[in-house]
Amino acid sequence: MTQRIRIGIVGGTGYTGVELLRLLSRHPNAQVVAVTSRSDAGTPVSAMFPSLRGIYDTLQFTHPDETPLQDCDLVFFATPNGIAMTQAPALLEKGVRVIDLSADYRIRDIAVWEQWYKLTHGSPKTVAQAVYGLPELNREAIRKAQLIANPGCYPTCVTLPLLPLLQSGSLKPNMPIIADCKSGVSGAGRKASVANLLTEAGDNFKAYGVGGHRHLPEIQQNINDIASGYASGLIFVPHLTPMIRGMHATIYVHTQNEVSLHEILAKHYSGSLFVDVLPEGVCPETRSVRASNQCRISVQKAPQQENMWIILSVIDNLVKGAAGQAVQNMNLMFGFEEDTGLAITPVLP
Amino acid sequence: MTQRIRIGIVGGTGYTGVELLRLLSRHPNAQVVAVTSRSDAGTPVSAMFPSLRGIYDTLQFTHPDETPLQDCDLVFFATPNGIAMTQAPALLEKGVRVIDLSADYRIRDIAVWEQWYKLTHGSPKTVAQAVYGLPELNREAIRKAQLIANPGCYPTCVTLPLLPLLQSGSLKPNMPIIADCKSGVSGAGRKASVANLLTEAGDNFKAYGVGGHRHLPEIQQNINDIASGYASGLIFVPHLTPMIRGMHATIYVHTQNEVSLHEILAKHYSGSLFVDVLPEGVCPETRSVRASNQCRISVQKAPQQENMWIILSVIDNLVKGAAGQAVQNMNLMFGFEEDTGLAITPVLP
Amino acid sequence: MTQRIRIGIVGGTGYTGVELLRLLSRHPNAQVVAVTSRSDAGTPVSAMFPSLRGIYDTLQFTHPDETPLQDCDLVFFATPNGIAMTQAPALLEKGVRVIDLSADYRIRDIAVWEQWYKLTHGSPKTVAQAVYGLPELNREAIRKAQLIANPGCYPTCVTLPLLPLLQSGSLKPNMPIIADCKSGVSGAGRKASVANLLTEAGDNFKAYGVGGHRHLPEIQQNINDIASGYASGLIFVPHLTPMIRGMHATIYVHTQNEVSLHEILAKHYSGSLFVDVLPEGVCPETRSVRASNQCRISVQKAPQQENMWIILSVIDNLVKGAAGQAVQNMNLMFGFEEDTGLAITPVLP
Amino acid sequence: MTQRIRIGIVGGTGYTGVELLRLLSRHPNAQVVAVTSRSDAGTPVSAMFPSLRGIYDTLQFTHPDETPLQDCDLVFFATPNGIAMTQAPALLEKGVRVIDLSADYRIRDIAVWEQWYKLTHGSPKTVAQAVYGLPELNREAIRKAQLIANPGCYPTCVTLPLLPLLQSGSLKPNMPIIADCKSGVSGAGRKASVANLLTEAGDNFKAYGVGGHRHLPEIQQNINDIASGYASGLIFVPHLTPMIRGMHATIYVHTQNEVSLHEILAKHYSGSLFVDVLPEGVCPETRSVRASNQCRISVQKAPQQENMWIILSVIDNLVKGAAGQAVQNMNLMFGFEEDTGLAITPVLP
Repeated sequence: MTQRIRIGIVGGTGYTGVELLRLLSRHPNAQVVAVTSRSDAGTPVSAMFPSLRGIYDTLQFTHPDETPLQDCDLVFFATPNGIAMTQAPALLEKGVRVIDLSADYRIRDIAVWEQWYKLTHGSPKTVAQAVYGLPELNREAIRKAQLIANPGCYPTCVTLPLLPLLQSGSLKPNMPIIADCKSGVSGAGRKASVANLLTEAGDNFKAYGVGGHRHLPEIQQNINDIASGYASGLIFVPHLTPMIRGMHATIYVHTQNEVSLHEILAKHYSGSLFVDVLPEGVCPETRSVRASNQCRISVQKAPQQENMWIILSVIDNLVKGAAGQAVQNMNLMFGFEEDTGLAITPVLP
Repeated sequence: MTQRIRIGIVGGTGYTGVELLRLLSRHPNAQVVAVTSRSDAGTPVSAMFPSLRGIYDTLQFTHPDETPLQDCDLVFFATPNGIAMTQAPALLEKGVRVIDLSADYRIRDIAVWEQWYKLTHGSPKTVAQAVYGLPELNREAIRKAQLIANPGCYPTCVTLPLLPLLQSGSLKPNMPIIADCKSGVSGAGRKASVANLLTEAGDNFKAYGVGGHRHLPEIQQNINDIASGYASGLIFVPHLTPMIRGMHATIYVHTQNEVSLHEILAKHYSGSLFVDVLPEGVCPETRSVRASNQCRISVQKAPQQENMWIILSVIDNLVKGAAGQAVQNMNLMFGFEEDTGLAITPVLP
Repeated sequence: MTQRIRIGIVGGTGYTGVELLRLLSRHPNAQVVAVTSRSDAGTPVSAMFPSLRGIYDTLQFTHPDETPLQDCDLVFFATPNGIAMTQAPALLEKGVRVIDLSADYRIRDIAVWEQWYKLTHGSPKTVAQAVYGLPELNREAIRKAQLIANPGCYPTCVTLPLLPLLQSGSLKPNMPIIADCKSGVSGAGRKASVANLLTEAGDNFKAYGVGGHRHLPEIQQNINDIASGYASGLIFVPHLTPMIRGMHATIYVHTQNEVSLHEILAKHYSGSLFVDVLPEGVCPETRSVRASNQCRISVQKAPQQENMWIILSVIDNLVKGAAGQAVQNMNLMFGFEEDTGLAITPVLP
Repeated sequence: MTQRIRIGIVGGTGYTGVELLRLLSRHPNAQVVAVTSRSDAGTPVSAMFPSLRGIYDTLQFTHPDETPLQDCDLVFFATPNGIAMTQAPALLEKGVRVIDLSADYRIRDIAVWEQWYKLTHGSPKTVAQAVYGLPELNREAIRKAQLIANPGCYPTCVTLPLLPLLQSGSLKPNMPIIADCKSGVSGAGRKASVANLLTEAGDNFKAYGVGGHRHLPEIQQNINDIASGYASGLIFVPHLTPMIRGMHATIYVHTQNEVSLHEILAKHYSGSLFVDVLPEGVCPETRSVRASNQCRISVQKAPQQENMWIILSVIDNLVKGAAGQAVQNMNLMFGFEEDTGLAITPVLP
């Protein structure tokens, strides 16, 4: 029988937590040995999430102070922002590997992070140690990392299509890159709120955070890491769409000259495990990736415009946008096949 | 008792038809005397739409060939494209006024129309006679019109906010105007289709018609009618969002210089019956106009960008985007108060 | 100009509150002069509910302690249970009329009420003074009432079809009456909760309160008020269905003998303003009453069974199930036409 | 490498077809070698269902007349009713095993079948050969079967909880068994229709088929196969609920005496792979089984009633109600572990 790595999850009662539990339940090389929750310690995991009955029958939430996470091989933080930054360093010191699904280690410029997240960073020196866990961008660094900053959902959905276009020098510098993004409601997390009630968010569509969303500096950092001269042109507008899972980015870019962005994307991602470039003219639907770790991308020339293109990119915000990407990073860190436990056929309809 | 004008509706079995019936049912100066349907002649209106039971109990669909529409004061065409263009001219000759909710008379350039609609126009000479029924743009002409081309939903949602910005010369010519638009599924009409099943369109988000949507030339014509030098920069991408009613446009524009688009919009629409400019920083929700004839608009400077602004505009696609605007046009044509029958409080939640 | 009665609303930030505001905004004989909210005092009503912009532009929430509700002709309590019972008596003493949309005055047996609502009743002597505001049951008493206990949504949806069947002696006593009921999520109110997030309640169906729901004793009291020997057979199971508005009751009854329940229902409700009995074989849809005060009822013999019938009943839980019925009661109390302000064509689609 | 059985699917363009493709894509012992479609021959499977891109890249729909299905080990019919009955016999003669997901072989009494399905049966003699594929009822017969009649979704959801109650003699004979059932819209299949548009079925709830649904005789046959004296009391009312997947049955039964149905159910299904009996007082949610082959059951005494109980049962109508159960049957027929390819963690949220 395969040796399984020992996994701890800090903050397992949210959507990224339960999604990690779903994905890891079918992973042959991993075993969840601890899930913490400050508020629900003592509750069996399958009592809170009946979908997990018969799968995690003995696992229950434990209080973070009483959970020996240092005995794990890997700890996922599926916590609100501001938790991992205080708890991860102690684990790292003991040699535990950490994948942080919150935003604590995503932004290298501490001042920028503190401005956007309205917090004083609790472990600024640790930030430099973190590898930004977008495998398509940083695969080799991830393999060797001890601490992964797992990307945000919007940054994943926007960066994946931009990556080959920026690397190839196809885009015109100092021009607007407009990312008009739409997210399902699960992106807002599993916490009591009026705004995300079915009665408020259902049969409704709206923009939010137009004046500035925290994923803006993260996308800008990604763009800058790939090529300079582009990040300042980014305009990012998120919208809430009445569905549970799924994220769609519509990105408007200016090209240098008459180049086929489709060819560049198709070539770059040919053979990619999790990024799929659609035939020209086919628009991706969010449901085509539901419950899976895929990103599907389409690109078209803007009709009647010179040198402007429209990029469409979809992910499941909870999988490639969160827990699935975290498992992909885990696979790389521990030398498993990159798609172990992630060979999931999307659920359609 | 008030004298009521006699109304005929051609093609009353679709969503714009039933929405006209809903709105006219509470209009003190109008009476629906005929509703035609080729396929459902003989069926009582309230048998097809039980929501109308007790309201239109004697009205039934009649065959178009056996309905004396020439006796009406006003005929609405709530038909697929290509019907009004063959039937309206005879009515117009008899002095009947016509409001066409289809696209047949919207585009003045016949060649452009035929290219986008893949039809030979059936009454090209009548096109010049039609007034484009966007009251905020053409109020005086509408009052005197015999034939109204009722605008499309996307053109209404996009043109209303652009109107004062173009008129005031605030936008920079020859720059992209990007209209990223999202529509509820009722925009696709009430016809059997796989793509719009709840099981296909539900919990799903996608773009469509990226390579060219028929509302593109209509929006371009509107822009050109207001100011020259802007229409060619239009990029229009429609998306389908899993809700029944509602439309949201997110529009990205370049300004000439440091001007407040909010001030221009707020001033222009101050006192407007149906266009409401929100306070700065407030994003409109589609449900805030549900079942009503309102358009709500918000505008914000793009963060960290010079001279770029983001405009948000919402309408109910079946009301201000179709039947409500048609009734508004009717009110103007017949000298009723412009909001007669349209003083509807939006249904929220 | 018509004299308008002066209306106060206590607790206007929930769904019954905003629905009262919607309905009263088009009522020619009523004017809302005060809306209280402990938590949102100082906020303009149209800032919390942008759907009301342009309609209630000067009205703002005021603190209950600083609002002279005694100057109103009528006060609606749109509050959680337990508020009206402490505040209504003082208003009643000053001669103000009161319609309580909460459950405080619905159950005449104080012990039963206290058992189900887990509260000590704050004004038990006032309970006897309250008239249960189901106009189809108590129209004459309502006209003369000073205090109305506005019925719950489930009791309205279940009692309306049972009323003529019980009155006519058609049902077999001491047999089960099974009310399998389904409600949209707005029935749970506008308060932060995990269970009613779009992500939890969306694309999901479940029963709740199977072991005992507070509307059970209310329905039993109604049944008993109409005929004795039936209430003890009631089985009531509510379910949550992923929609915003709407309620559907499926009721299984035993008849005495071969009688047509359809005839009894159709005859009883012939001429009714708000109860519509459908032709045999037509099933009502909740959307056929959306945003309106209608109840639509259908009845069919159970196939292959002797003397068992299936009744289907739909209402909009926020209108006939709450705010609309409250306005109907107001109309009766003040001598207005019973459907004043309630002649609303349902919104479909 | 494992030897894989060769699978053919007749009629692969519907929801049971694409669900079979999803489930079989992760089955280690099966390989889909042919999928037929009369209307879409020549189309790659992944062009119609982009969710299958990267998974079935070489498979395309082929015309049934040109597909050598006789070379398969097993053929699934995922067709409308009336197809399998004409095509299955020839395959059976060649020794191919067949699982029919349509209703053609479910009812042993041909006259009853013809009455409900309004068709003349095309292979009445083959019916006797078919094993009704509810493994929890007929496991041993299924192992040896050549032809499986895969159960309907409603019959599965209703029969599973009734099975141990009937077997144990706990229910009172000749009393009503009321099955009030609610289905997501995918139960209606993937075919163009007005009634199942998002705009018609969304935010709406209704009963249908009250006068008689085809699954009624199937449930009656199941009941009769388990115990006599009960089938005639069945009342079955299906409802449509605005969700994509999921089915919920609420069943009202009379017991012989004071017996705990919970104990009987829990004991019977202890150790069951796919039937999970919840703790008392916990109501099952349809999403707790989404995309999985589980059935979850809960049971409660009706409050204040003697000897009446309420049973709640949920399945995913496309999995345990169709394709998943078909794969379970396949596993039994070919001697694989019963849950091979079906160890799926439900997708929540």
